[in-house]
Amino acid sequence: MQKFDPLNPDFESRVRAGFAAQPLMRTLGATLAKIAPGEVHIELPFSAALTQGNGYIHAGAITSIVDSACGYAAFSLMPVGTSVLTVEFKVNLINPAKGDRFVAIGKVIKPGRTLSVCSGEVTAYANGATKLIAMMQATMMQVSA
Amino acid sequence: MQKFDPLNPDFESRVRAGFAAQPLMRTLGATLAKIAPGEVHIELPFSAALTQGNGYIHAGAITSIVDSACGYAAFSLMPVGTSVLTVEFKVNLINPAKGDRFVAIGKVIKPGRTLSVCSGEVTAYANGATKLIAMMQATMMQVSA
Amino acid sequence: MQKFDPLNPDFESRVRAGFAAQPLMRTLGATLAKIAPGEVHIELPFSAALTQGNGYIHAGAITSIVDSACGYAAFSLMPVGTSVLTVEFKVNLINPAKGDRFVAIGKVIKPGRTLSVCSGEVTAYANGATKLIAMMQATMMQVSA
Amino acid sequence: MQKFDPLNPDFESRVRAGFAAQPLMRTLGATLAKIAPGEVHIELPFSAALTQGNGYIHAGAITSIVDSACGYAAFSLMPVGTSVLTVEFKVNLINPAKGDRFVAIGKVIKPGRTLSVCSGEVTAYANGATKLIAMMQATMMQVSA
Repeated sequence: MQKFDPLNPDFESRVRAGFAAQPLMRTLGATLAKIAPGEVHIELPFSAALTQGNGYIHAGAITSIVDSACGYAAFSLMPVGTSVLTVEFKVNLINPAKGDRFVAIGKVIKPGRTLSVCSGEVTAYANGATKLIAMMQATMMQVSA
Repeated sequence: MQKFDPLNPDFESRVRAGFAAQPLMRTLGATLAKIAPGEVHIELPFSAALTQGNGYIHAGAITSIVDSACGYAAFSLMPVGTSVLTVEFKVNLINPAKGDRFVAIGKVIKPGRTLSVCSGEVTAYANGATKLIAMMQATMMQVSA
Repeated sequence: MQKFDPLNPDFESRVRAGFAAQPLMRTLGATLAKIAPGEVHIELPFSAALTQGNGYIHAGAITSIVDSACGYAAFSLMPVGTSVLTVEFKVNLINPAKGDRFVAIGKVIKPGRTLSVCSGEVTAYANGATKLIAMMQATMMQVSA
Repeated sequence: MQKFDPLNPDFESRVRAGFAAQPLMRTLGATLAKIAPGEVHIELPFSAALTQGNGYIHAGAITSIVDSACGYAAFSLMPVGTSVLTVEFKVNLINPAKGDRFVAIGKVIKPGRTLSVCSGEVTAYANGATKLIAMMQATMMQVSA
């Protein structure tokens, strides 16, 4: 696991402020679970409103939390006066999104002045057991705020 | 543009029934706009609840509708007694998701007994103008219902 | 199909010069088949040296030509004094790479000062018939030359 | 790191035989460096014939070795009488492919009877230092041999 030195000492409060200002995260019921330099965790409790008809969470909701986790992980390493945009991502849905809650972990693999490459995964928690349900590989871009 | 012969003559009612049973689509406010063999359109009106803090729709909501459009496009060509799962997708976010409404179009490029490859795009409509905002390349899987 | 105005009137000779300077393209036996603003075609004749053991061309060789086609398509729209780098791509292998020759077509979907999004496809030609064998969605970056 | 029990006790000799039968790997000069259940390493020495004009190895050659590493990693866990096909992959090119030699590592994240999800990375070695140059997320398919 890489260690990163954040360029902005207030990275944690910036991530919290950014997350709090994202209506979609509220709409889904997602919360920030961990913030470290280059790594952010987002938690989503099960909600029937987010399912795809068979009781599993829709891939779009799963993608929403892991995209945000990767985006904030990249943002945590960016300097003051910048913001983050998702350029692109790829998601593999590995197991059905079945569980009581879901944790998306986004990690920076390579930070950059323009582009940062991130890796994400989503784990389902159900009755004390865990299962990897999705993997993401993403490119994030630093822009002037 | 390819023409496909659906294996199931009731493909349209099956897609409608599947879509109607997806709580996430209701939660987002998305509706079915067109169903043809191998091609499905899903429309999403702007809603502040789906934004990412700067007034643009979150990539996760955009991905949700284009994933569903691609999934139902693949499903429209599948035989009776089957269902569809998303294996994986890749999304490029090309322009900010700014507009009054958004239309996701999913098309089958190569149908298959096990895997179908689909192409998706999302267009934003604002004040009579349109802009391509996202592109998807996706793999869908046919499973027994 | 979009029409693009190239920023560099010498785009065609620049693409030819860039391609001629790429040893891998020579090693594979690939040649430039068409150059237009925002669209480049690369042709690869079948060669047993590029196969994967079952007589089909290896996905890596197919990816090489469609990555180059997308890269030069993006490069054809870039201004004087710049060069192009591949940021990332995703490839779906749709049919076996079986044929006498293969044509990769790279097209710019959205040109940009920093990033360009491209779409690529590879078609196999065999006994007068054609088959789509691969699709690419790629992000290219403009850098100072 | 996960541990996998191979379904075929002869997995190592099968991977070696498969690799030896791949002309493209010979054309590139790649060799097998490690075979374990669910993990395969492929090494590529620098060769000017594989470069892209600026002295760096072309993304297509890098993709070729990491695609093969992921494919053989998946194949190492498949039962007797089967073969492996690449369904799709996504590659991020993280640093220039500059070095004396390159090692691609493919690992199975989730094995499956039909589809296996793999993760790959390529590291460059130069003057005793190493650098991550590419990451892959791939889907492999088991087919009857």
